Amino acid sequence: MAILERNDTGAIARLKMNAPERLNALSDEMLAALQAELDALRDDNSIRVVILSGAGKAFCAGHDLKQMTQGRQASDRGLSYFQDLFDRCAKMMLSIQSLPQPVIAQTHGIATAAGCQLVATCDMAIAAEGTRFGVNGVNIGLFCSTPMVALSRNIPRKQAFEMLTTGDFISAERAAELGLVNRVVPENLLAEETDTLAEKLAAKLSSAVKIGKTAFYQQVNMPVDQAYAYTAEVMAQNMMDRNTEEGISAFIEKRPPNWHQ
Amino acid sequence: MAILERNDTGAIARLKMNAPERLNALSDEMLAALQAELDALRDDNSIRVVILSGAGKAFCAGHDLKQMTQGRQASDRGLSYFQDLFDRCAKMMLSIQSLPQPVIAQTHGIATAAGCQLVATCDMAIAAEGTRFGVNGVNIGLFCSTPMVALSRNIPRKQAFEMLTTGDFISAERAAELGLVNRVVPENLLAEETDTLAEKLAAKLSSAVKIGKTAFYQQVNMPVDQAYAYTAEVMAQNMMDRNTEEGISAFIEKRPPNWHQ
Amino acid sequence: MAILERNDTGAIARLKMNAPERLNALSDEMLAALQAELDALRDDNSIRVVILSGAGKAFCAGHDLKQMTQGRQASDRGLSYFQDLFDRCAKMMLSIQSLPQPVIAQTHGIATAAGCQLVATCDMAIAAEGTRFGVNGVNIGLFCSTPMVALSRNIPRKQAFEMLTTGDFISAERAAELGLVNRVVPENLLAEETDTLAEKLAAKLSSAVKIGKTAFYQQVNMPVDQAYAYTAEVMAQNMMDRNTEEGISAFIEKRPPNWHQ
Repeated sequence: MAILERNDTGAIARLKMNAPERLNALSDEMLAALQAELDALRDDNSIRVVILSGAGKAFCAGHDLKQMTQGRQASDRGLSYFQDLFDRCAKMMLSIQSLPQPVIAQTHGIATAAGCQLVATCDMAIAAEGTRFGVNGVNIGLFCSTPMVALSRNIPRKQAFEMLTTGDFISAERAAELGLVNRVVPENLLAEETDTLAEKLAAKLSSAVKIGKTAFYQQVNMPVDQAYAYTAEVMAQNMMDRNTEEGISAFIEKRPPNWHQ
Repeated sequence: MAILERNDTGAIARLKMNAPERLNALSDEMLAALQAELDALRDDNSIRVVILSGAGKAFCAGHDLKQMTQGRQASDRGLSYFQDLFDRCAKMMLSIQSLPQPVIAQTHGIATAAGCQLVATCDMAIAAEGTRFGVNGVNIGLFCSTPMVALSRNIPRKQAFEMLTTGDFISAERAAELGLVNRVVPENLLAEETDTLAEKLAAKLSSAVKIGKTAFYQQVNMPVDQAYAYTAEVMAQNMMDRNTEEGISAFIEKRPPNWHQ
Repeated sequence: MAILERNDTGAIARLKMNAPERLNALSDEMLAALQAELDALRDDNSIRVVILSGAGKAFCAGHDLKQMTQGRQASDRGLSYFQDLFDRCAKMMLSIQSLPQPVIAQTHGIATAAGCQLVATCDMAIAAEGTRFGVNGVNIGLFCSTPMVALSRNIPRKQAFEMLTTGDFISAERAAELGLVNRVVPENLLAEETDTLAEKLAAKLSSAVKIGKTAFYQQVNMPVDQAYAYTAEVMAQNMMDRNTEEGISAFIEKRPPNWHQ
């Protein structure tokens, strides 16, 4: 079995991390597999939405500590390996946000350390009841410094700081309150509810969603006047899309749009 | 009747969008009228607070799609018109934030697309029970790229992304939870509650409120050390105001301030 | 009695503001005492966590208005004194964030103006039931411009604006909802609950916590790709710590870490 399974249904690609015996740890192999699929999806116009999930008991438990420990045998005690590892991991996370298609995290069990970062990085997240989220590297003396980049851009500052320094888990319900996930559903409905959200997005005009996602992360750190200058041009270009013209005409004429996509 | 009505009571200016048959769409005419009033208010020292509301069933339903569609008849299929339109709209939104007086959105019915942006842009917002908020341009293939500039600076990231890509409405109560509005009141108390908030602000020292509002948006995107260098000087200058001197003296002497404003 | 008491227990330093008759106002003397302790703590490797509290009925009521009023007797009506005062205050606030050890605010009674800023500035905060928070300088004509730097980096924008322009207090429970404090506890358990949190942090690997806190505030305002480049290196360096190596080995071997710190 592949370490990362991909199953497409219509315009939805499902990526399932498949190393349940390691709680889907982000090993070198898992990172490479995720990066390869993200690179392939980028230009795959048949796919409009991506779902990321994990096989077995956990969504993802973060980095593979055993593999990292093996890296210490190098002459530099692993430093260059670790630098490369965290760079590869960050590149993969950034690839999720720069992917034009929305990525939904379908989370259950636990999502810890870089696994929690993965949830924070995805554009949206649905959590099964009982899912626990934590950035608990501090408990073993490895502060979750890269996970905090994503986490602190999702939830308020003091609450992020508490998670990072206590290593405590938060519940799915608390994650929803704080903004880390979009909503919580019973575990037996998790796949179905995630699919429903994905199908809703897949039914939109894909070019508009891609334009929008790209613009979302571009504008979010700009000063507001620059953000407006940029997005005003994005909207004007969006207006020139023939499918958008049809969408607006259909709305005015109170009929469904006839999109060619 | 004017497309934008202005009624002043004491130091409070009430702007009411008045194109109910078009759900107060931000047409060329509405944008021009809003810009003109904002420009006039900027230097109007008699006004200390502005309330923005909408006549009829909706607060504001966003851009005027029929008028935009007419713009497609130009030789460039409307591109230069759309660029100009979104620039004018962004300018108006930025004028609300750069207006020295606080602007309160008094919202009811629906606030969608650029109408939701207007709510997010105002300094504060009160919502009637039953008000629904959405950035639903995605449903017609026109992603709400300019509205997201304001929205993503009001509510957490994943929740903004969900609204933008699903096009789903959120309730007034959910808007309050997320931070898009300050509070929800029964519809029959909407005007009264908004007035009460406006009157509370109008009773403050206007020069201090203006200094503060201006500084608020200036500092919010600065690195924290720059933000402190800037606001420390703002506070020192605020201290030199004769009315502030009187306000502090009155506080120490446990009496009401005798402000000349 | 000193204006700022320091009591250490093990790796926890407790700073108690001790001018209860002035509601622990941030007078010149209090600011100097806080700055001196923060400077001393920075290089004190025996201390891993700091708790900041206030003696008497209030946590802190902000600047010392009587002392500020005396400053008006200078030939420049106090301008250079005020500039210096707000710079010193900002420096002290920035020193809390740049201190490598986490600082927990233990709050009760009231925390107003620069006292509320102090809560917002601390890395975490626990509030006793009944604590009230406000940035109410606007009520005396002195807008809380420096407090808003910290406040607007803790809570959503419209809610910060409302507090700043109305001067209204919010309850401890509302402060927790908005993100200004981490949690609310019964007043008779305040010291105990704060200690429990501090002890939890003190039991972590101190070098990792210090690395993490420093990185937290460094990365939070960076563009996301810069933030990842920076934190990836931070994590790689964290991996080279002998205690971190031991922490990871202990985790793999399912035993407690044997840290030398």
